[in-house]
Amino acid sequence: MEEIDKLLEDFKKRDRRALSRLITIIENNFYKIQKKFYLLLDGTQKSYIIGVTGAPGAGKSSLINLLISAFRKEGKSVGVIAVDPTSHRTGGAFLGDRIRMQSHALDKDVFIRSMGSREGKGGLSLSTPLAVRLLDAYGFDIIMVETVGIGQEDIEIFKLSDTGLLVVTPESGDDIQLIKAGNLEEADIIVINKADREGADRLYKEFKRELGNVKNSYGFSPIIVKVSTVKKEGISELIEAIDIHKRFMEDNRVFEKKRRERNLSLFYLLMDYTIRKTLREEGIILKDIESGNIDPFTGVKKAMNVICE
Amino acid sequence: MEEIDKLLEDFKKRDRRALSRLITIIENNFYKIQKKFYLLLDGTQKSYIIGVTGAPGAGKSSLINLLISAFRKEGKSVGVIAVDPTSHRTGGAFLGDRIRMQSHALDKDVFIRSMGSREGKGGLSLSTPLAVRLLDAYGFDIIMVETVGIGQEDIEIFKLSDTGLLVVTPESGDDIQLIKAGNLEEADIIVINKADREGADRLYKEFKRELGNVKNSYGFSPIIVKVSTVKKEGISELIEAIDIHKRFMEDNRVFEKKRRERNLSLFYLLMDYTIRKTLREEGIILKDIESGNIDPFTGVKKAMNVICE
Repeated sequence: MEEIDKLLEDFKKRDRRALSRLITIIENNFYKIQKKFYLLLDGTQKSYIIGVTGAPGAGKSSLINLLISAFRKEGKSVGVIAVDPTSHRTGGAFLGDRIRMQSHALDKDVFIRSMGSREGKGGLSLSTPLAVRLLDAYGFDIIMVETVGIGQEDIEIFKLSDTGLLVVTPESGDDIQLIKAGNLEEADIIVINKADREGADRLYKEFKRELGNVKNSYGFSPIIVKVSTVKKEGISELIEAIDIHKRFMEDNRVFEKKRRERNLSLFYLLMDYTIRKTLREEGIILKDIESGNIDPFTGVKKAMNVICE
Repeated sequence: MEEIDKLLEDFKKRDRRALSRLITIIENNFYKIQKKFYLLLDGTQKSYIIGVTGAPGAGKSSLINLLISAFRKEGKSVGVIAVDPTSHRTGGAFLGDRIRMQSHALDKDVFIRSMGSREGKGGLSLSTPLAVRLLDAYGFDIIMVETVGIGQEDIEIFKLSDTGLLVVTPESGDDIQLIKAGNLEEADIIVINKADREGADRLYKEFKRELGNVKNSYGFSPIIVKVSTVKKEGISELIEAIDIHKRFMEDNRVFEKKRRERNLSLFYLLMDYTIRKTLREEGIILKDIESGNIDPFTGVKKAMNVICE
């Protein structure tokens, strides 16, 4: 327990090792710091959060790498959480991507960390927002969260972000399909990466046509930006698009609304975590519910007794 | 309250109006019967549950219509819950589909009911499994649950089912993409509907190739069946495929495992519902968490006090 107190103290002194260690604890043994975690939060939530999602191979990490450089030139500090898709059958160059970003490894105002994505409740869902809050408390101006965009996770990452980027490429012919399926209407900016390749213009036009009249749940029409991370082109346009979106949110009080939703969402995730943990430790009730010895309704009554003991 | 007691009594006498009325209460005012709902469950869970999902226009309702006829010929009673996609931008002939199934309207051993699909927790997630448990308690041999398959809901419906059917058509060129995206690996049977149309054989081969070596989380390789609901062809093959899957589950004790998971899942949904309802009624804590007046961790402590009062 003393070790934890020391960690919290070091964190408040902006010690990077303490930050890194706390993220490891969030990932693996969150219960160890749950009761003291609130001491780390100042409630101000000053960081600007950018979510970056897209299919494997879309070039998310290269893009983040260039965004880091751009933000650093503006004098802003940057924290990055990259959620590893351990639960998906994607394979590929994920670790390589991480290493690529290490060109910023010696910059003390850049912090990059990958986290495992565990399936199910309390895995990705809880640890990612907790890590983001931790980076916020540490004081980064910008926080970027990268995740492989498959289905539902896109939406989670957009909810977690102030500005949500969807990265697509001319090669990924299925992206328009995904948009039609309705999963991606909440992206704030569509980044067409590998814009030097064949088909980029066609894709741009297709997105323009599909999304031209679409407004998301708070009235914003996604901005479409062409980028080439290889040729380092389009990054300033992307930064400008992020600014446009930020101003829209400020002008329409969306910023505030998003923060409120995130507070509530984190609260419910914590409630869920606490309750599941308490019941797992008790053990018997869950077994009886699983086996059908007691019905789920009676289970709720009994569970309430355990939780309220 | 007396009205509820009368309803429960009528339900136990297998009164259809009571069944119908109870589903309406589940949809709109579940809190009214929450405390007495356990009285309806006998814990045996005898019904066989078939989930049917697929894109709009794939012919799910026509298929269910033919399956009802086939099961009725075997002397089995059938209950159907069709989840309406009110939260999606799909549009289309949903109500028309409902009416089409009314060819069984006069059969007292067939019960068909559509339910709204509300977004968010406690909407679709809670009311659908509750309705299924109710149909089970009523004593239907077969329960079918139909839903429009977009993203995450597919998986939900497969978890809720003993056998999960994914309905595709030669026209829907994106289905292979969806499978590649990893969303549909948990389907037990892929039904290629409109098999009389061009491209059905190509689609069949494509699925065979993609899914030939795929086993789902409990070791079953999806069966692919061609059906034409218009020509009423392939239905007996589909019934046989359902039987094969059922036998596989019995032989490998998956049946039992699925039921255990469903019990636990319904319990957690009920816990969540109860907690959210209690906190919404209290009101102040949620507001303070949303606004950031209290951090989510302090919120959990305060919420526990309210719940445990």
